[in-house]
Amino acid sequence: MALTRKGQATRERIVAAASRLMLDQGVARTTVEDIQGAAAVSPSQLYHYFPGKNAVVLAVIEHQTGQVLDAQCQGLDKLDNFDALGNWRDLMVGILTATQCVGGCPLGSLASDLSESDPVARVQLANAFQMWESLIHDGLTRMQERGELSPSADTAQLAVALLAAVQGGLLLSQVRRSPDPLIKSVDTMIDHLRTLSIS
Amino acid sequence: MALTRKGQATRERIVAAASRLMLDQGVARTTVEDIQGAAAVSPSQLYHYFPGKNAVVLAVIEHQTGQVLDAQCQGLDKLDNFDALGNWRDLMVGILTATQCVGGCPLGSLASDLSESDPVARVQLANAFQMWESLIHDGLTRMQERGELSPSADTAQLAVALLAAVQGGLLLSQVRRSPDPLIKSVDTMIDHLRTLSIS
Repeated sequence: MALTRKGQATRERIVAAASRLMLDQGVARTTVEDIQGAAAVSPSQLYHYFPGKNAVVLAVIEHQTGQVLDAQCQGLDKLDNFDALGNWRDLMVGILTATQCVGGCPLGSLASDLSESDPVARVQLANAFQMWESLIHDGLTRMQERGELSPSADTAQLAVALLAAVQGGLLLSQVRRSPDPLIKSVDTMIDHLRTLSIS
Repeated sequence: MALTRKGQATRERIVAAASRLMLDQGVARTTVEDIQGAAAVSPSQLYHYFPGKNAVVLAVIEHQTGQVLDAQCQGLDKLDNFDALGNWRDLMVGILTATQCVGGCPLGSLASDLSESDPVARVQLANAFQMWESLIHDGLTRMQERGELSPSADTAQLAVALLAAVQGGLLLSQVRRSPDPLIKSVDTMIDHLRTLSIS
């Protein structure tokens, strides 16, 4: 569907409002009426862009994937040595501290919320995590190519483990309202990568 | 409230039914009527044991905490060397494979579902994760006391990092429907512990 500029802006307003609601209170607790109210659109306007709530959910996942990966790229695009790895870690801790550990990772929260209730959303979220993992993997590969990591380091395994450390750390930080778990979890992975460095 | 044996059995039936529903479809999607139907109790019976849905949620968290920690203890109670660490890892991979990676970690799912909507539940889940972390920490401390880990290893930090690796690995395994992320995430932490062993 080709949208006019005004139509595009209305669609984006709906998606932004739905994102906030779904991340604040969960997908199931967010009704189509809530979204209409928050985005200040009529029912017919909302249905013009989205045939139903499921379609809004998929647009929210797409929106959050863009947001999270854009933020991640600020740290991961420059990743080719241990200083850059520390900067990426600081970037994540900074975001977490700024939000007072509320909300957890948007993609992790949506994945936990939707994996068993919406198979299409689950696949879309699996793809989002795959892209995130690839960004980490690319950075670790650059470190290896520059001789910062041993040629024998399994960068594919390490990329999954780093993403898992971030996700698990963010969840524990959310539930404890403390950045401590994310910091300890990512720092332990960085310690591990240092054991694989060529010194 | 002291319950008769029959009362206790009814209460347990309600909690077991509510646990299944809330983990299958999420807390918000589970109504009190769903729970009554699944547990085959009348509204007045349910309200005899629980003043409302929030009270059922807290009982579900308590129930799932018991289930998860009991299963974890089967691996963690024996943890005092690397073979036992591998057995704990195999135990978790076995459970994940048996469930075909559906559902993720019950405590992780409840934490993601409830942390922003139910402050009492969040604190109860934070306590559950604290108990889990202590079980891991106790095991790593035994490994250190036996000389399997260096005296300089920070077992408190490593315990948080291991729990985060399990939680992040389980979430990624749930969304990908593959045990691969959990395996790679926990194996990477075991690799790291080996770098801290006294050889």
